[in-house]
Amino acid sequence: MPGVARAQSGPPLVFTDAARLPLVGRAFPERPSGWHRIAPGSYPDLPAAVKERLTNPAGLALSFTTNSPIIAARWCTADAKQNPNMAPIAQRGLDLYIRRGGTWLWAGVGRPGDGTVCNDETLVLNMDDSEKECLLYLPLYKELRSLEIGVTARSSLKGAANPFRKRVALYGSSIVQGASASRPGMAYPARLSRHLGVDIINLGVSGSARMEPAAARLVADVDADAYMLDCVPNTSPELIAQRAGNLIRTVRSRRPHAPIIIVMSIIRGLTHFNRVWAENMVRQNAAMLAEIKKLTDVERLTVIPADELLGHDGEATVDGTHPSDLGFDRMLRVIEPIVASALKQNGIL
Amino acid sequence: MPGVARAQSGPPLVFTDAARLPLVGRAFPERPSGWHRIAPGSYPDLPAAVKERLTNPAGLALSFTTNSPIIAARWCTADAKQNPNMAPIAQRGLDLYIRRGGTWLWAGVGRPGDGTVCNDETLVLNMDDSEKECLLYLPLYKELRSLEIGVTARSSLKGAANPFRKRVALYGSSIVQGASASRPGMAYPARLSRHLGVDIINLGVSGSARMEPAAARLVADVDADAYMLDCVPNTSPELIAQRAGNLIRTVRSRRPHAPIIIVMSIIRGLTHFNRVWAENMVRQNAAMLAEIKKLTDVERLTVIPADELLGHDGEATVDGTHPSDLGFDRMLRVIEPIVASALKQNGIL
Repeated sequence: MPGVARAQSGPPLVFTDAARLPLVGRAFPERPSGWHRIAPGSYPDLPAAVKERLTNPAGLALSFTTNSPIIAARWCTADAKQNPNMAPIAQRGLDLYIRRGGTWLWAGVGRPGDGTVCNDETLVLNMDDSEKECLLYLPLYKELRSLEIGVTARSSLKGAANPFRKRVALYGSSIVQGASASRPGMAYPARLSRHLGVDIINLGVSGSARMEPAAARLVADVDADAYMLDCVPNTSPELIAQRAGNLIRTVRSRRPHAPIIIVMSIIRGLTHFNRVWAENMVRQNAAMLAEIKKLTDVERLTVIPADELLGHDGEATVDGTHPSDLGFDRMLRVIEPIVASALKQNGIL
Repeated sequence: MPGVARAQSGPPLVFTDAARLPLVGRAFPERPSGWHRIAPGSYPDLPAAVKERLTNPAGLALSFTTNSPIIAARWCTADAKQNPNMAPIAQRGLDLYIRRGGTWLWAGVGRPGDGTVCNDETLVLNMDDSEKECLLYLPLYKELRSLEIGVTARSSLKGAANPFRKRVALYGSSIVQGASASRPGMAYPARLSRHLGVDIINLGVSGSARMEPAAARLVADVDADAYMLDCVPNTSPELIAQRAGNLIRTVRSRRPHAPIIIVMSIIRGLTHFNRVWAENMVRQNAAMLAEIKKLTDVERLTVIPADELLGHDGEATVDGTHPSDLGFDRMLRVIEPIVASALKQNGIL
């Protein structure tokens, strides 16, 4: 049976530098060089690890139209190192959606080779030649160095306006950055974006999101209609007590009318048998709730409780911490209606 | 925050060769040398690629008890090559469950290093010292060369009887072998096994399951209470017409009273825009149904239709073919009640 063949085996393709195509999910109007989420050098006070994570284009997606029956891509990442808890397609691959009947429908992935920094892959082929609106999600967990989109010689390829008008900034940990979705478009911010029809600015920083003052300024500087904060998982109770109030007040003071939605930490599967983790998690969420209770003067503040986020069978994560697509699906069943309601109440949806 | 630390950083551990511990999910009473699913050299007529797949210990799990507060593992695989559509934990890692209150609850994973053939990892730590029943699932997609289980020096480690009494043989493609579960215990045969409390013999052979006469003999030779056949995805309509009747009749003739459950092919996401795939899939499932209709004399034959297996939003796979944990979860919502009913009707459950 035919699979998705390499670009080389089909008709000749013409490649276009994707730097010319519009990007969805951008934090700021100025487009950084390269494919970083924020310009290198901005926010010098951020921890080095956070700056590194912000070089990964999680949540960024190219917006274009084409009538090509084939869509291919050539791309290079900073390296080809592999995390144990993610598929290469998610970590350093590409994920294509095409709009059909008003819905974004999955169309194809760019599969990175084993250990290959540069890849040349067909994302989808054998399509009809109607004009199609495309969203191409970029790698979740690896700096992208170059990207070209290939279409057949007689086809069009045009940048398209951002299909999403309203903007939500979402600050968080590895879970927000997308670990461990199966592919970039399955990260929970990306799914929430397509479901609600809003642009979600992914400010997920794996291993961190510890609410440093510089991170609070970054989040508040993003001009958005609403703010989501999912930053409990990597922050100790002590740091939560020191920093959570400042983060929320910084956003509120800069964005007086925007809803702020706090996502409590998922209950990690590590808590099933590891007694240290079981105690940690209770303390983390309790510390966050204690800080939120102090903010009686902060309006339009919504809290999404932890209890139902991952269900109760312990099967929602790959490693006890990072939700699989199943875990993200369960999270969205809780999060999505609450976010939709907050956006509607504030005239954003 | 502490993660799961390496074995080296905790108390001294004593390692036991896992070849001495009982295995769940075995096809035949004779245990092959190594960690193969069937003995090398048996079924010489099988295609070479199928024989290779049967060296991967998909669906095999160690059964043991321990009161150690730490469980660690040292293991080596044939190589460390990585597929683009699977997490390393699934492809060549380990996945531990512990029974609590009658339910198998996830406890920890063994994470393979990037490119490392041999690994030494703590699966879980900080547990209480009660006696625990453990199931340790082996790598889905890589030949295992050695495996040792580590517990603290003062703890017990004993092989345990197979916790499952009834047996179901499940023959199929990569989807049965477990692509693209996030970890070995999330492959759909493994989840079905835990949910129903039956031993499922995983005869998933990635890229194949084309119902060759030798494969039909292998399936029928497995002494099981029921047989599941999920072997449409890689088989052309022409081969289905040639071979499906023989496969089903071979099983029926060898196992006159066992229920036989046919799983139709999931509708691949590749069909969304790829017109060749859209046509292929319709023809494959139609060919299988046509063969089944001819078998009017075969009793206790159940067919699970394709339509609802993956839902209808196109989000159930990593690459248009292989279900993520979300896709497997959706499949099980359809498959599990039908299998449970067939087993109950035949006095097996």
